This record gives sequence, C-alpha cells and structure tokens, in this order.
Amino acid sequence: MNSSHRAVFKFEITHQHSHSRARLGVLTTPHGTIDTPVFMPVGTQATVKALSPEDLEDCGAQIILGNTYHLYLRPGHEVIQKLGGLHRFMNWSHPILTDSGGFQVFSLNNLTKISDEGVAFQSHIDGSSHLLSPEKSMEIQMALGADIIMTFDEPTPHDADRAYTQKSLELSTRWAKRCREAHRQDHQQLFGIVQGGMFKDLREESAKQILDLDLPGYAIGGLSVGEEKSQMLDLAAHTAPLLPNDLPRYLMGVGTPNDLLQCAQMGIDMFDCVMPTRNARNGSLFTSEGKINIKNSKYKTEDLPLDPQCACYTCRNYSRAYLRHLFVADEILAMRLNSLHNIAFFQTWMTGLRRAIQRDQPIDWSFPENNEETLNED
Amino acid sequence: MNSSHRAVFKFEITHQHSHSRARLGVLTTPHGTIDTPVFMPVGTQATVKALSPEDLEDCGAQIILGNTYHLYLRPGHEVIQKLGGLHRFMNWSHPILTDSGGFQVFSLNNLTKISDEGVAFQSHIDGSSHLLSPEKSMEIQMALGADIIMTFDEPTPHDADRAYTQKSLELSTRWAKRCREAHRQDHQQLFGIVQGGMFKDLREESAKQILDLDLPGYAIGGLSVGEEKSQMLDLAAHTAPLLPNDLPRYLMGVGTPNDLLQCAQMGIDMFDCVMPTRNARNGSLFTSEGKINIKNSKYKTEDLPLDPQCACYTCRNYSRAYLRHLFVADEILAMRLNSLHNIAFFQTWMTGLRRAIQRDQPIDWSFPENNEETLNED
Repeated sequence: MNSSHRAVFKFEITHQHSHSRARLGVLTTPHGTIDTPVFMPVGTQATVKALSPEDLEDCGAQIILGNTYHLYLRPGHEVIQKLGGLHRFMNWSHPILTDSGGFQVFSLNNLTKISDEGVAFQSHIDGSSHLLSPEKSMEIQMALGADIIMTFDEPTPHDADRAYTQKSLELSTRWAKRCREAHRQDHQQLFGIVQGGMFKDLREESAKQILDLDLPGYAIGGLSVGEEKSQMLDLAAHTAPLLPNDLPRYLMGVGTPNDLLQCAQMGIDMFDCVMPTRNARNGSLFTSEGKINIKNSKYKTEDLPLDPQCACYTCRNYSRAYLRHLFVADEILAMRLNSLHNIAFFQTWMTGLRRAIQRDQPIDWSFPENNEETLNED
Repeated sequence: MNSSHRAVFKFEITHQHSHSRARLGVLTTPHGTIDTPVFMPVGTQATVKALSPEDLEDCGAQIILGNTYHLYLRPGHEVIQKLGGLHRFMNWSHPILTDSGGFQVFSLNNLTKISDEGVAFQSHIDGSSHLLSPEKSMEIQMALGADIIMTFDEPTPHDADRAYTQKSLELSTRWAKRCREAHRQDHQQLFGIVQGGMFKDLREESAKQILDLDLPGYAIGGLSVGEEKSQMLDLAAHTAPLLPNDLPRYLMGVGTPNDLLQCAQMGIDMFDCVMPTRNARNGSLFTSEGKINIKNSKYKTEDLPLDPQCACYTCRNYSRAYLRHLFVADEILAMRLNSLHNIAFFQTWMTGLRRAIQRDQPIDWSFPENNEETLNED
C-alpha cells in the first residue's frame, strides 16, 4: 500500500465495546465514509434487485456490493468503464465493494476447470467459454471502479478434505499475490481473503500467508457455504482475532440478524448477504416480532404496518393487507416495497447494534428465529 | 344529480380552442382538481404496474383508473372497503376513476352468459362462479370509493351485426338506469356510457337514451376493441358532439399519442389506456423522436438519456446503456424506470396539447409512428 492509498482511505476505530471484541469504526473511501459494523446490500447486476439508489439511501444503506462475475458477463466491464464506471452507470454515489468473481464462478457453473492460471468456465447465460484469473479479476474490478475490491481466490467447498483444503488455500495465496501485483489504482483498496475451509489450523496458515501481503483490509471467505451454523460461528470466532486489529475485517456472505450480532462481537466490521432482498422477493419479511410470510391469509384485512416499530417507506405508507394483495397478485410493486422494508430492517438492526457498542451495553437481544408462522394461503 | 353532488363536483370549461372543438377544462372532485384534456394511467390491481404513488405524482399523473372486475375478484371490494377505500388502500390521495367491470368480464372470460339480470362468468383466477350485474357493479364501485364511477354495460364486440348491436345498446341503457337507481353516494359521480358499436345511427340512438339519465358526465365506450383505427376515429368524431358540451366527455381505452391529439380536437376531455405501462414492460419506450426498443444492441454503450428532451426521473439519472442492461438482465428496476418514463411521456404530451389549446395554436404536430427501428438483439 503506497502513501496515496492512505490519503484517500482510512479506517479509524472510534470505540471498543467493553463487553466483547466488537468495535465501532469509520471507514473512509473516495465515495464517502461508512460507520462499522456495516451490513452491505448485494447489488449483483448493477442494481440491488427492485430498488433504486434513492430507495437504498432512504433505507440507510451506506455501501453496496457488486458482483464481478455477473458484471463481466453482462453488460461487460468495458461497457461499464466506457459509461464512467459502476457508480455512475447505476447512479449510486456512495461506496461500492466488488467481490472477485471467485465465489460465483464456482457456485453458478458445473463445468469449471481450475489450473494455476485461473478458472475456465462456461457462462451461465449463453454457455460461452471464459477464463477468470487473478489478473482478469483485477482488470474487471479496476474497470468497474469500486472503492473496495477483493483478491481472486477459490472458496474451498465446505466438504473438501484436509489435503484439498491445504492445496486450495495455497493456490488462493499465490493468486492473491498476483492480484496485488496486477492492482494499480490508488482510488481502490484491495482486501485479501483468508480461506482454509473447515480446519482451524489451515485457517491460521491461510491468515499467516495472506497477512504477509500487507493489504489494507482482510476478509474471511469460504464460510456460510453449506456447513452447520455452529461450525460457521466457531470458525469465524477462531479466524477473526488472527486478523490485524487496526484493519477492517469482513465476513463474506453472512448473514442472519443473529449472525450479525454474534460476529460483530468477534470484532468483525463488514457483512453482506442476499438474504434480505431474496427473502423479500419470496414474501418473507423481517419484523421486530420475527419473520412473517406476507402471503398468509391472516393478513388479508390487516390494517397494521408490516412492522409497527419500523419507520421505512413501506411501513409508513402501506398496510399488511395491501402488501399481501400486491404479493398475491404478483405485482411488481410488491418486490420493491418488500425489498425496501427488509433492507431497512437490516440497516436499523445494525444501527441498534452500533448504538449498544457505543454505550457499552451488553448485546443481549436476539432476533426471534423460531416463531415462523404456519403458512395459510387461501 | 342532487345538489350536494354539485357542491363537490364541478366541470368548468376554461378555454375553447379556436382551431378545433378541443377545450381546456378543470374537473373538480373530492380528491382534487384535474386539468383536461387528461390522460389517466391504468392501475388495474390497486397499483399502476411497477410504480409507487410518488412515482406517479413525479410523472405528473392527475387521476388514475382502477378496474372493478380485478379488484372485486382480488382482494375483494369488501377488503378494500374495510381498509378505508381504494385511495387509502393504495396510498393514492388524488382522484380515481373506476370502470364498471363490463369490459374485463367479457375480454378476460370465454364462458360469460348474458341475461337481463347481468353477466354470469367464471373468475380468470380460480374458475369460481360470479354474477356481475348493474347493482353488483354499483355495490363494488361504492365500496371502492373512486371519485368517478361508470355505469355497467356491455361493450358490444366490433364485429357484432346491426341486430345484435341494437339489442345490446338497449340492454346497456336498461342497465345504466339500474346503476343510477342503485348509486347513492354523494362523493362519487356516476358517468354514463354511449355504446352502439360500429353503427353511427345506433351511436345516436344510444346517446339519446343515455343522455335521458341526466348524468354528470358521459363516456364513449366500445371503441378501440379491434376495429380499424380510421373507423375508431370516425365513430369517435361522430359521437363526441352528441354529448352535452358542458359536461366531461371520456373516450374509454384510447389511445396512442396521435389518438389523443386527434380525439381531443373532437372535444373529448378524458382518456385512458394501458399502452404506456404495457409497452414499458416490453421495452418499448416513447421518446420525442419516436418509439425505441431498449433491447436493441445499438444502445449497449449509449450514454444518452432515453429521451434528451424528457425531464423525468429516468431520463435525469440513467443512460440508455444502463436501461438496456437492466432490461436484458431481466431486472425489476427496468420495469419501474421504463414505466415511469412512458407515463411521464404521456403526461408531458398532454401538457403540450393543453398549452396549444390555451394559446389557440394549431395542433399540427404528431408522434412519429413509422420509424420503428429494426430490432437487433445480441
């Protein structure tokens, strides 16, 4: 990291929680500052599904995530670069983080072929052949122009054995080095990713290798990929303290409201997950009383807001009865109102978490996970 | 019409165009005033597809249309009544007009059975049996609570012969009388509908019968139902002057930008059509240069707004390249941005028309209909 990086980027820990490893931070980027711990909504294809940039601002979103794999295939990173980069293309003036494409190239393709050079795959859209390599991932991410970009790696499958996991993490380290060499843009910060699968000692080994790269932030990758929740939490708790205390820590692809509370207390600062938007599109909505399924016939004439505790646009203006009607009638507005609410719920959830950290209060609440109602459709 | 109607409702003609029968008017309703000639976006299922009420306000929409047939079947008029009526249910505080259900009951069902009592049909959603009658249509429309409601009638098929058309218009007159008797809400205004199919003398006969009901506004129904454009225009031109000059005239289901110009010059004040929203969802967008198909690969890297002449949210903030990307990637935001633009285009189009009437300028422009580009998808 050269000095001009340091001029634009900064991570300041403003408060250390007295009850846990949780901390409050301010991450400064060229497109603004971010209060951490932060939840980042996922904007896969240059849009957080169903929401406009103003909707996202209204929800309190501070930073969103873009997917390198998807944007490379469609519309193509050169197109986005020609249009002025991802921020301008999608009209989002706040920070963006792009992933490296490593996760999707494996999860969306059956016919990948890994070599030291990179990953050969066929497009899930039209079957065309492509090679994603560390250099290619950097080329794409530099063209997209996100504030924070990620090293290209292999997220080791959760059922990989020790030998495979060892080989995989070493490959990821070699690729991360090539990423660092290929990355030459001062207005972007490159984060490294710790792999090591389900093996604590391999997590340590990966952390040691990746930390050698002297990057300005580190992520924990390869979790929440099919393993048990308890194992995910155990490995996150084991890995987080291996990462430098003064740099931002990012747990990729996590998680539920309770995951966010627990992992923040491990000292993790950044999270992303498709859960709020995907659930919203399926009618599963987060409220202060737990999840509700808006299809349920019991909401047919209910005049209450989705969540009487929520101040989002959806809750300020619409009844459960109306939201149920829109969803059952397959109306496009349902997707927007539901997504807006779920993202607002996650943002408010993080605000509550940050407030408790600030006030040194114990984080002794949780999201009611087990009250899912019986779905009664009529 | 009793005196309290007159207190809430008013139609004032504020200017008569010197070049045509077009006129400027102000229609006052309990939910606000409407400048005529007016184009009403269609909100079939208690939402103008893909748009929020704020989006519609932003587009300049003054009044929207709701569909009695759809809202009766889902979520049910009693549900909407219980939730405070259609305005509150959908969070739209401006005027609403509901149709009678007559059009959809025929166009969406194959197994309708007409008797003097009404129309028996099976729901297009679940096959359940229903009877829509003049009294039922009034019951539903009173429960919905729109500012302007319509008499229940049979829109005669465009290929009906003279004998059928004659019988049909007489049935519609009997039904209209029953509607007037069943309608007892001062805060709603009931408009009558002239039928008579493709026969000018039968249009005259229908107009005479319907005008006898002494209603506060009249529509021309049963046009734009499959006949030639020239025939539609000819029949509209023949029928419009049969309606009282001092009352609002509404041409149902019309039309294209050029139809709106031509029919306004016949002295018609109100229009509705699904075209702007339906086209938007198919990627067909209205611009000052003509229609464009946003799927076209020539827009792949085009940094221009959809319509550089347009001041709508979509055109202020997004490039053609981005709109193409969203549409091709099947993103929900495409539906919203496209619909918003097309509705804004229609509203701006009407503003231009009203301005020309006000200034007594000839309405000598037209929408370029024949420049549809070759669709080249890549």
